[in-house]
Amino acid sequence: MTRIRFQQSLEDLKENLLVMAGLAEQAIQRAIEAYRVRDLSICDLVSRSEIAINRMERDIDQAALDLLAMEQPMAIDLRFILSVIKINADLERVGDAAKSISDRVRNMEQMPLAELPVDIPRMATLSADMVRKSLQAFIEADAEIARLVLTMDDAVDAMNRNAYKALTKVMEEQSHLAPQALNALMIARSLERVADHATNIAEDVIFWVQGADVRHHKSVAAAQPQQKAG
Amino acid sequence: MTRIRFQQSLEDLKENLLVMAGLAEQAIQRAIEAYRVRDLSICDLVSRSEIAINRMERDIDQAALDLLAMEQPMAIDLRFILSVIKINADLERVGDAAKSISDRVRNMEQMPLAELPVDIPRMATLSADMVRKSLQAFIEADAEIARLVLTMDDAVDAMNRNAYKALTKVMEEQSHLAPQALNALMIARSLERVADHATNIAEDVIFWVQGADVRHHKSVAAAQPQQKAG
Repeated sequence: MTRIRFQQSLEDLKENLLVMAGLAEQAIQRAIEAYRVRDLSICDLVSRSEIAINRMERDIDQAALDLLAMEQPMAIDLRFILSVIKINADLERVGDAAKSISDRVRNMEQMPLAELPVDIPRMATLSADMVRKSLQAFIEADAEIARLVLTMDDAVDAMNRNAYKALTKVMEEQSHLAPQALNALMIARSLERVADHATNIAEDVIFWVQGADVRHHKSVAAAQPQQKAG
Repeated sequence: MTRIRFQQSLEDLKENLLVMAGLAEQAIQRAIEAYRVRDLSICDLVSRSEIAINRMERDIDQAALDLLAMEQPMAIDLRFILSVIKINADLERVGDAAKSISDRVRNMEQMPLAELPVDIPRMATLSADMVRKSLQAFIEADAEIARLVLTMDDAVDAMNRNAYKALTKVMEEQSHLAPQALNALMIARSLERVADHATNIAEDVIFWVQGADVRHHKSVAAAQPQQKAG
């Protein structure tokens, strides 16, 4: 493979990962739309998305593996391919989260509508925004945008904690609404996981771009990443 | 690096991953022990385990990356190193699950003890057993053991579904127990995720050993994996 063809293969890999990201983001949006309007036909779309996402995950993994095996790339290209493999796994789990949410919507379908003290669509918008921004950081190889995603995670965590408290209270005080409150709580938790995956992606982008490993450094959004010897 | 030194580095990588697996398994066991006896000092141990697991994840990732960068391994060695990177990420998330469980235990500490219709320790034993078996499959490069893990996952899923039903009923019928029931439900869900990570590890072992990608094939436990062209 010539250098030019190798660079083209890396571009193809990136393109495919972006398609995968689009599918994952769409799956979340659909799942939340299903929740908002209680429409099971949208749940079916989410199930189909999940199958497509799973297939795409395998294809991207295989392409990344082939590039590693045939080209033995070094340094920055190697980091890039490894980041693709990791981001790929996170996107697949975003698809799983969408599926979990739509399963909850199916579960709620037989239950009477209830006014609950949680703004699921807002939480979903923020989580989906984090996924989109983490991918933007990846496309533009921009560690600053990636760091912004890390700071956004705190907001989603706080929303999830508040949802937990408020919905537990509903369960205690209006036990006839317990099933609905529980489903909403599970959906909030799935969205919090989506935000976690976006955080993972952002960390992988920083790893790729800067050669620093920022995972598990809580204060990273402010600090300069350290160069790691190795 | 000579071939012998390279093989030694692969062995070291495997050893470190096994230490990591031991930490992750211990973290789950400790978290469940904390649940069983309501002992917050054990929760502190889980928090410390999580920090150690996170540090180890970074070190293993870096060592795998160094081997890829310096040795440009091919075929089976490349697959092995990629499997280590993926298994490493799953083990780190098992550590996260242990931390989530111990957070729930802290949450329950102020609440009166409640008899709940869920056997958390049994579910934990099964999930931890799956993690252990998936690692055994990895050590022995044994796809048969890995397939056994895939079949075990159904049992844990069923237990989680039953826990969900039974605990929702508690919330509805004994609303004063809603907070305890909810915490137990969250713990059951974390254990189901541990089982999912064990399943991921088992799939990675099959990928490594057989060069087949069995992810997302529900019937894989029975079927022969297909050789993939690439």
